[in-house]
Amino acid sequence: MAKNLVRAGYALTVYNRTRAAAEALAGELVSIADSPSQVAERSDIVITIVTDSAAVEEVIGGPEGVIQGIKPGSVVVDMSTISPAVERTLDKELRSRSATLVDAPVSGGDVGAIKGTLAIMAGGTRKAFDRVLPLFEAMGKTITYCGPVGNGQLTKLCNQILVSVNLVGVSEAIVFARKNGLDATTMIKAVEGGAAGSWQLSNLGPKVVDKDFDPGFMIDLIQKDLRLVLEAAGAASVALPAASMVHQLFTSAQAFGHGRDGTQAVSQIVSRLSNLE
Amino acid sequence: MAKNLVRAGYALTVYNRTRAAAEALAGELVSIADSPSQVAERSDIVITIVTDSAAVEEVIGGPEGVIQGIKPGSVVVDMSTISPAVERTLDKELRSRSATLVDAPVSGGDVGAIKGTLAIMAGGTRKAFDRVLPLFEAMGKTITYCGPVGNGQLTKLCNQILVSVNLVGVSEAIVFARKNGLDATTMIKAVEGGAAGSWQLSNLGPKVVDKDFDPGFMIDLIQKDLRLVLEAAGAASVALPAASMVHQLFTSAQAFGHGRDGTQAVSQIVSRLSNLE
Repeated sequence: MAKNLVRAGYALTVYNRTRAAAEALAGELVSIADSPSQVAERSDIVITIVTDSAAVEEVIGGPEGVIQGIKPGSVVVDMSTISPAVERTLDKELRSRSATLVDAPVSGGDVGAIKGTLAIMAGGTRKAFDRVLPLFEAMGKTITYCGPVGNGQLTKLCNQILVSVNLVGVSEAIVFARKNGLDATTMIKAVEGGAAGSWQLSNLGPKVVDKDFDPGFMIDLIQKDLRLVLEAAGAASVALPAASMVHQLFTSAQAFGHGRDGTQAVSQIVSRLSNLE
Repeated sequence: MAKNLVRAGYALTVYNRTRAAAEALAGELVSIADSPSQVAERSDIVITIVTDSAAVEEVIGGPEGVIQGIKPGSVVVDMSTISPAVERTLDKELRSRSATLVDAPVSGGDVGAIKGTLAIMAGGTRKAFDRVLPLFEAMGKTITYCGPVGNGQLTKLCNQILVSVNLVGVSEAIVFARKNGLDATTMIKAVEGGAAGSWQLSNLGPKVVDKDFDPGFMIDLIQKDLRLVLEAAGAASVALPAASMVHQLFTSAQAFGHGRDGTQAVSQIVSRLSNLE
């Protein structure tokens, strides 16, 4: 993502906990900072992308965090997938320093990040969004303004409900096919062009059939996201029978050591329920 | 479907319980029969498409059914969506008369039937399939040979697992979005191009948002198909936690009078769980 910004002509100050990762980017347009606060001191727009809510709280709000160095008028863009509530809290803290937050989680994986084809779902003021839009256009393809701070995260969580529930449906169809003597590859080809068609079926279905569990997107990470889904759902009194059951099946996948496998390894749990290898 | 066969140059003998429906097709290439057995007497290939297993048993195996008039060497093609086990039984009965069965359920709805773009999933001997393939090509677009008799139905049932589980995921994502203050249409547009994308999301998602419950495909019919799924799954010891829960949500939709609405009306049940209109 940083490389795509440089390619678009932006000068960057970068920080990474693993300094070597930052130094790998160093060049004419890229200088290295010693802390997130130093990045903020030297920048008008600060972008963060880390693993979870705690990491974002540390990088933005921690003792050497972005807020410590933020300049009035700056925009902080958090592209991690974390709790919408945490984004709203951090936005309040930034506002007390005359700065503002845009939450802008992404989907599209490593490949999308490299190719600059990420989907970016952004929440914040319209003004802040418009200001950072050219940067988003350097990193992504489908860029959507979703409303106030937190709405980017909420949209990403909708994405995670959709992918995870559908993937379990794909797994069940494949187990049903196999135990009934169908060739699962033929089944997928027969139905993927119609109303049963989906990205999950066409892209992960064949991996389920081949027992190729390379991630893609790891089960430990979808579980983190489903916890965020159920937390936000609980806060808004939203009952999600399918998503919560799917979360349990992924928990079973973790129990069987599939945490660092791709999400499609949940099919092993669905298979195992029917005594199928 | 009959019109598309005539358009391709085939001469038909047609029968319908409602004689007027048959007579509407009458013309140079189309004559009317008084019973399914009379159709069989005058045909080399007999095609049936009716509502459920009982109706197929009547039309093929009943007192005035196809078997009563079948000629040795004929192929019966049943394009209904019914029990795979019933197809296998009917095939055995036909074999005792030196005829054979191809089960070939379709997907693609009224529109696909009219335009000749149906997906056709066929089970039977390879020889029988090859013989009827030119007729399938007049009625459909994606035509897949799925293996022995019954495998067309099993493939169609996989299709129904996929559409119904995914549709509940779509409903949950939209309820989650609405109760959290997102614009659901914006959410769909933000995610449909990526890993969350599916036919159900792009085609039925907007109808869920607009509360447009015109069928499409009726809940009473997906319920019939999900009963076939669970029956075939039970017979093969396949546990389907998501599909069976989805079947229950559709049952609730029927309880609230949505049986003759489109499948997307299941979203009303998912909404109601969260006290959302």
